[in-house]
Amino acid sequence: MKLATLRGDGPDGKLVVVSKDLSKAVSAEGIAPTLLQALERWQTVESALRELSDNLNAGAVQGAFIFDQASALAPLPRTWQWLDGSVYRTHAELMATAFGTEPAKEDVLLMYQGMSHHFIAPTDPAAFPSEDDGIDFEGEFGVILDETPMGASPDEAAEHIKLVALVNDWSLRAIAPIEMKTGFGWISAKPACSIAPVVVTPDDLGESWRDGAVDLPLHVYWNGKEFGRANGHSMAFNFPRLIAHAAHRRRLSAGTIIGSGTVSNANYREVGSSCISERRAIEILDNGKPTTGFMRFGDRLRMEVFDADGVSVFGAIDQTVVGAGA
Amino acid sequence: MKLATLRGDGPDGKLVVVSKDLSKAVSAEGIAPTLLQALERWQTVESALRELSDNLNAGAVQGAFIFDQASALAPLPRTWQWLDGSVYRTHAELMATAFGTEPAKEDVLLMYQGMSHHFIAPTDPAAFPSEDDGIDFEGEFGVILDETPMGASPDEAAEHIKLVALVNDWSLRAIAPIEMKTGFGWISAKPACSIAPVVVTPDDLGESWRDGAVDLPLHVYWNGKEFGRANGHSMAFNFPRLIAHAAHRRRLSAGTIIGSGTVSNANYREVGSSCISERRAIEILDNGKPTTGFMRFGDRLRMEVFDADGVSVFGAIDQTVVGAGA
Repeated sequence: MKLATLRGDGPDGKLVVVSKDLSKAVSAEGIAPTLLQALERWQTVESALRELSDNLNAGAVQGAFIFDQASALAPLPRTWQWLDGSVYRTHAELMATAFGTEPAKEDVLLMYQGMSHHFIAPTDPAAFPSEDDGIDFEGEFGVILDETPMGASPDEAAEHIKLVALVNDWSLRAIAPIEMKTGFGWISAKPACSIAPVVVTPDDLGESWRDGAVDLPLHVYWNGKEFGRANGHSMAFNFPRLIAHAAHRRRLSAGTIIGSGTVSNANYREVGSSCISERRAIEILDNGKPTTGFMRFGDRLRMEVFDADGVSVFGAIDQTVVGAGA
Repeated sequence: MKLATLRGDGPDGKLVVVSKDLSKAVSAEGIAPTLLQALERWQTVESALRELSDNLNAGAVQGAFIFDQASALAPLPRTWQWLDGSVYRTHAELMATAFGTEPAKEDVLLMYQGMSHHFIAPTDPAAFPSEDDGIDFEGEFGVILDETPMGASPDEAAEHIKLVALVNDWSLRAIAPIEMKTGFGWISAKPACSIAPVVVTPDDLGESWRDGAVDLPLHVYWNGKEFGRANGHSMAFNFPRLIAHAAHRRRLSAGTIIGSGTVSNANYREVGSSCISERRAIEILDNGKPTTGFMRFGDRLRMEVFDADGVSVFGAIDQTVVGAGA
């Protein structure tokens, strides 16, 4: 099942079910007005949403309309909690090279709390105050939970994964290492993320949802040119373990999004990277200094994931970077 | 004007106006159902709320009832964003002693993003999984904002401070330094905070709202015994500067709470401390090792602030620490 949120009167938009091929949608407001409300009573609404989805895919539903990705907000335009991990070992090692720091020990699960009061719509411009901040993207997968109790084990946590998402965690690299040194995490270095228009239930991914991770390449295009296609499977800590870590000393509210951190593979020379900082780190390793600059106002960034048949799974994040106030 | 949130059908409770002496309340649901909704349209609802407040204080309102602090939830039982500073220099120096780290440089503004999907009601038990985690309180002041644009200056930010709150930022000290070392900030070390039952507009504080800070002692009682009464005024960065820092590269949604960090004064030998870790640091300075332990299940924690006439400003946080699942 695939869900999306269309622009509506309120900040949370309106819930729609999207067809498997992303061509059609139908309003689900009769079942739940918004995705956040659907997640808050998932046990009650899931079967009705799945029935609507089945009928939409069978061409047997009234009121279906063409799904235009540009009419979509982020599936959760805002939510109560966004916790982002960093579990791709290659990313951790390359970022330590980029920042000139020691990589975290292999048994340390890295996670921070980021802003969740706004997720940028997938085709809206992304606005930043200054090019000097080192504007970078981070291609990630994320999972969206229903209410998850404090103390949930990884097995229990897995049962609370209701939806899977494609996330761009916008990052400001000139600020990130300064904020890290305080030990307090990031405020300025991590502005609002973007989310691809469509979220999917794990079963929608078929065999590509494997070991609590997404076994598909995440394609990143910078100004129309492929920058990376790293596969999401190689998580050092998979999503159930990330959730159990987050829930160790707090309950997690319905609508909590847990991110994987930047998808990265050991064969980065073949598949490329999901953020600019990694490429710069590789340049440092190869040539002693980085040669690729960060993003400029007017640059375009696209992220998309395709299934085995070449069909877009989540739709595309496709944004232009602009100056704030421009 | 004083506002509170009573337990209601939904997770956000129901908004009431509270009298200056905390003795009476009246429903404000006809103006805004919840405090979060009031903040989202503050310009529209403020005058009606103030009129209701004036009438309540004059004894000229129908439907007034006795205000029972035990019937209150946290004023915002959940909100979209909680950003907590650490701006009392004495606290920073003593915590560096407690953790065996270097204190941050004086010109660095410290701030982290904490969980905002649940704030514990002021008289509900506070549940933690283990006494071994080093259960500690942190007495703080906080301000609550309406929508604040990205790039707001301190002067502009000051205009968005709609309410002032008394906050207990529960902290787990056995975990805090481990998470700090990652640079990613805290997940496990910072579970849900508690908020005193009543929030007040800055003008309600009279001359005690001074230089963008609260010039009143924050009384902390551990198992009935006064532990500290540090004054909130000595912020190295006041609330407008904290807000401008937070808003530098993100807009702040209505309902955002900005915390001061643990209130602490240079004359701590006279006024005591607002958290156990500070007392332990003072013991390390004096005797080479800490002698005060952290909180135990069954312990009671009370925080309260009084105005010049001895009247409770925010009502009291008065909680028992319990084992999660107990």
